Amino acid sequence: MKGAIEVCLSPDLIGRYELQGKVAVVVDILRATSCMVAGLGSGIQGIKPFSDLERCRAMKEEGYFIAGERNGEKVPGFDLGNSPFEYMQPHLKGEKVATTTTNGTLAIEKSSSAKEIIIGAFLNFSAIVNYLKQDKKDVIIVCAGWKGKVNLEDTLFAGALVAVLEETHTPDCDAPIVARSVFEKAGNDFEGFLSGSSHVKRLNRLEIKKDITYCLKKDQFGVIPKVNQEGFIVI
Amino acid sequence: MKGAIEVCLSPDLIGRYELQGKVAVVVDILRATSCMVAGLGSGIQGIKPFSDLERCRAMKEEGYFIAGERNGEKVPGFDLGNSPFEYMQPHLKGEKVATTTTNGTLAIEKSSSAKEIIIGAFLNFSAIVNYLKQDKKDVIIVCAGWKGKVNLEDTLFAGALVAVLEETHTPDCDAPIVARSVFEKAGNDFEGFLSGSSHVKRLNRLEIKKDITYCLKKDQFGVIPKVNQEGFIVI
Repeated sequence: MKGAIEVCLSPDLIGRYELQGKVAVVVDILRATSCMVAGLGSGIQGIKPFSDLERCRAMKEEGYFIAGERNGEKVPGFDLGNSPFEYMQPHLKGEKVATTTTNGTLAIEKSSSAKEIIIGAFLNFSAIVNYLKQDKKDVIIVCAGWKGKVNLEDTLFAGALVAVLEETHTPDCDAPIVARSVFEKAGNDFEGFLSGSSHVKRLNRLEIKKDITYCLKKDQFGVIPKVNQEGFIVI
Repeated sequence: MKGAIEVCLSPDLIGRYELQGKVAVVVDILRATSCMVAGLGSGIQGIKPFSDLERCRAMKEEGYFIAGERNGEKVPGFDLGNSPFEYMQPHLKGEKVATTTTNGTLAIEKSSSAKEIIIGAFLNFSAIVNYLKQDKKDVIIVCAGWKGKVNLEDTLFAGALVAVLEETHTPDCDAPIVARSVFEKAGNDFEGFLSGSSHVKRLNRLEIKKDITYCLKKDQFGVIPKVNQEGFIVI
């Protein structure tokens, strides 16, 4: 008996899915979940996501480093923006980070009825795969998208996961087949394929090409960040 | 200057798009918009869509033929189900049809702020293409999907349209690239590709394979059905 795999291509569609009993893999490749994986994999103690910017800012007084972007740019007065390299800085080891991002936080919040929420990125791809293969867990991949719209990079990640889980998991709706087609069309040149995407075009304008290249690297970390009871992301 | 092309993969996402000034191409390949194209191309005078089944039923007293399916099956007491062959019956020539379907009607209703709503299917593919190429009209393809979820056949149609409009239209978000990947992955074997889709599996159970084969045929009709001021679909 295989596990079931579903893909929710935008947080706006999550109400159409049954999350109970499933593992939700939240993905926001550019760049929220890539940052989380890079940061937790580099020794950050825990990351707390906020959709509200001011609530995030207030965490500064509780000893948190605060991180955030709006429309792809670092929030003025914050310690970190949304670059994975900032999350890997040595002085953050053992520290707590409060973060607010446009799409990733929303995707996490909307996945709250899942049995378990884990954080996916290419950076921890194989760790996620191995985890899901154990016991053939029923899984829904929740793509953060871009302001409710479907985006290419999260769809690509979902498709890569669907393809590699083929032997243990059966698609339960059409979105996994859509996502897999995108992945197979991209081939091995993720960056070239994504160069036409709206998000990458936006980010290129902001001169963060280095981030994009890094966020598309596979298996830099073996961690599986999970959202705990308090809404904290830890490994 | 090219036109803009967008794809809305589910009616649930339509609030994220600006429709004003654009031509909305509503598509529900299996089978609402295929039926509309087949029916209007075969001489039906006009088709009025309803999301509410009982309001549709009431049109019987106003001289309409009434058509409808729920979850892929003909509504008891209705004149027609949702097979394109039923819509092509000679006795319907010059008649009016009221129809209610699960997803297609909703997609039409939600597109109401567009400058113009036209009905797309593979059956009138080239007519739609030529129409959109004239004046390089800005276009949004609104996929009916399946109960709010993304489906394969409507995504495939959207991708086919994006591909053929490449020279006149530029993608304005990532969904056109996603859809085009699906189309290119499918190649020329639409039916084979769709055999893995959830909808086709459902329909196969209902023994309407003949409908599916027909709905995937290109260019059986040269009509461009439009939704008029009164919500009537006419050519």
